[in-house]
Amino acid sequence: MNVDLDGADALLMIGDSERNTDLYYATRLRAPDPFVFAWTRRNKILLIGNLELDRARSQAAVDQVLPSAHYEKKLRDQGLENPAFRDVVLAFLVDLELKNLQVPADFPLETADFLRQAGIQLKVAPTPLFPQRQIKRASEVEALRRAMRATERGMQVAVETLKATQVRDQTLYWEGEVLTSERLRQMIHLQLLQLDCMAQHTIVASGTDGCDPHQEGSGPLRAGEPIIIDIFPREAASGYFGDITRTVCKGTAPEALRNLYDIVHRGQQLALEQICDGADGRQIHQAVQNLFVQAGYETGEKNGRMQGFFHSTGHGLGLDIHEAPRIGPRGDVLKSGQIVTVEPGLYYPDLGGGVRIEDVVLVQRDGCDNLTTFPKFLEV
Amino acid sequence: MNVDLDGADALLMIGDSERNTDLYYATRLRAPDPFVFAWTRRNKILLIGNLELDRARSQAAVDQVLPSAHYEKKLRDQGLENPAFRDVVLAFLVDLELKNLQVPADFPLETADFLRQAGIQLKVAPTPLFPQRQIKRASEVEALRRAMRATERGMQVAVETLKATQVRDQTLYWEGEVLTSERLRQMIHLQLLQLDCMAQHTIVASGTDGCDPHQEGSGPLRAGEPIIIDIFPREAASGYFGDITRTVCKGTAPEALRNLYDIVHRGQQLALEQICDGADGRQIHQAVQNLFVQAGYETGEKNGRMQGFFHSTGHGLGLDIHEAPRIGPRGDVLKSGQIVTVEPGLYYPDLGGGVRIEDVVLVQRDGCDNLTTFPKFLEV
Repeated sequence: MNVDLDGADALLMIGDSERNTDLYYATRLRAPDPFVFAWTRRNKILLIGNLELDRARSQAAVDQVLPSAHYEKKLRDQGLENPAFRDVVLAFLVDLELKNLQVPADFPLETADFLRQAGIQLKVAPTPLFPQRQIKRASEVEALRRAMRATERGMQVAVETLKATQVRDQTLYWEGEVLTSERLRQMIHLQLLQLDCMAQHTIVASGTDGCDPHQEGSGPLRAGEPIIIDIFPREAASGYFGDITRTVCKGTAPEALRNLYDIVHRGQQLALEQICDGADGRQIHQAVQNLFVQAGYETGEKNGRMQGFFHSTGHGLGLDIHEAPRIGPRGDVLKSGQIVTVEPGLYYPDLGGGVRIEDVVLVQRDGCDNLTTFPKFLEV
Repeated sequence: MNVDLDGADALLMIGDSERNTDLYYATRLRAPDPFVFAWTRRNKILLIGNLELDRARSQAAVDQVLPSAHYEKKLRDQGLENPAFRDVVLAFLVDLELKNLQVPADFPLETADFLRQAGIQLKVAPTPLFPQRQIKRASEVEALRRAMRATERGMQVAVETLKATQVRDQTLYWEGEVLTSERLRQMIHLQLLQLDCMAQHTIVASGTDGCDPHQEGSGPLRAGEPIIIDIFPREAASGYFGDITRTVCKGTAPEALRNLYDIVHRGQQLALEQICDGADGRQIHQAVQNLFVQAGYETGEKNGRMQGFFHSTGHGLGLDIHEAPRIGPRGDVLKSGQIVTVEPGLYYPDLGGGVRIEDVVLVQRDGCDNLTTFPKFLEV
């Protein structure tokens, strides 16, 4: 892996690699506290506190690991009683004679202002910082496949549980108790944890709750209405995400819901058929939108609330749950090796809820490889 | 809650509140995608995408929620075909006549450079951005107590399992199989998940693995050596962390380990006795360090590796696992209402491992309230 320095001495990054996935991608070190990373033409250099020093030396995919304590001591010897983090960064840059730097778009402003005042040149690198992150390596595809398999096991628990419920007064009962979104979510999470995957904010949204695509859902689940289940856990060991959505209905679905499900399903098929190297994400999204509109499913604000198809068709998936490329109104041109979600949805409070169906696929030269094997059906 | 604008028109924040806990603290909205927040003298205003609009309107503790789509449309109407996020931010600021802004230290540089070029004044606010975050409100103390209770239940699972193991050839067996760090970690995580807490990177580190304080530990657990168990889950509903560490030994501990445990325990007691409103975190840390040195436990590098007591005595705990104040070489003066960890440790590969003992306490006027009730013992 190389970095385009565009004439700069180095790329400089500061952050904790638990949250900053670019930093993790470049260093392969996961650390919860901020550290400094400089990528010069010849070397990858990490500057880190004593607490992480040993771990960094054994785990980080870099050429050199320097202790920040070294520069702290140097600064104290020079009379600076309490060197701040930014002082240490500056001392490090001066020591390595790095004067002209590229930094990521999210580089922290305070440190930037301080370094510039000290005569360091900083130029913001184009976004995305590492375009190669979009093109997954074999080991990354394998991690994503593994995450998807675990994610599907979570979906299986959800669907099997819903199948096994009893219905009384339209309310679902499981093992004698009312089955709630919260309870089903926890069952999914427990299954995922046993497969080394951490899920957060899993959506189990019944009826009109599902019309708000980020609403997690709460309360008793009911028969005869759509239940959107969207599971997107992260594999702890690798840091890669899985992502899947299915919409199911316990018992017989009302006709309006069946129609809604069918058109969303057709929309997804249309998108899946169009995905290949060179396809335009914007055009794919537009084609799905057109299909919906032609079938009479309009998108827009009604009673102060968005309804119809008002999110993107898909997004890249990897170390972040949302990453480049986009398949949406501002879509990108797709390339072989990208891994993207395909998840059209339609949401109408007046129809009693929404439907979303989501798979994850690997873009290929002449089509795509669907990493999702979980079947699609409405009624359970 | 108020904000000190220091003469500026507003505080401007941009980020996703899943990762940016200051943004969550200010808005009480948890959203995985970046949004914009402006806090003027009179209003808290949120600018957010359509996908999160409804949820923001119902959940965010702000005065106004504006759709970023409004500004995107305006810019397109003005002839900008593909408005970028930064264009939308600028249009929003211009519309609200906000020209002179405070921003947090971690404000993204690219956006800052763009806004400054457009004539917006940006000044970095002092860190921490919200000093009041350190002083926990009653509801926050309650959330932290709840997180601690769950965390202790995780520790209980670990200790009870270790007690129930059989020893063969110094290796621990549980239900007929070798008990590994990985297996015990998963048992802890499953327990926590049932209490709505998400744990990551839980440490179950046996023997010299424990000498690296962020090493998670792996492989079979053994009798007669220290096992450091450090659990720090986040309560999903509230976002607050628990944190606890115990060091235990299956079977009879060697004398050197017993001595190490006793001195760390004494160090922790010393720190706990000194914590109160107005106490200096640096002095507390120094007192613990002195106690260790006087007992013959030196700190420094040996064979290229840090040993002794080379991390801080404690840190603030809340929405972040590490937050202000610090009890360490760069300690802060403690104040009533802060919640801090107290976790001295000593690590000597030559003695076969390390010992760390950690409680979480609420700083009070004349002492502290220990939120941790889990007992302390070495042998299990």
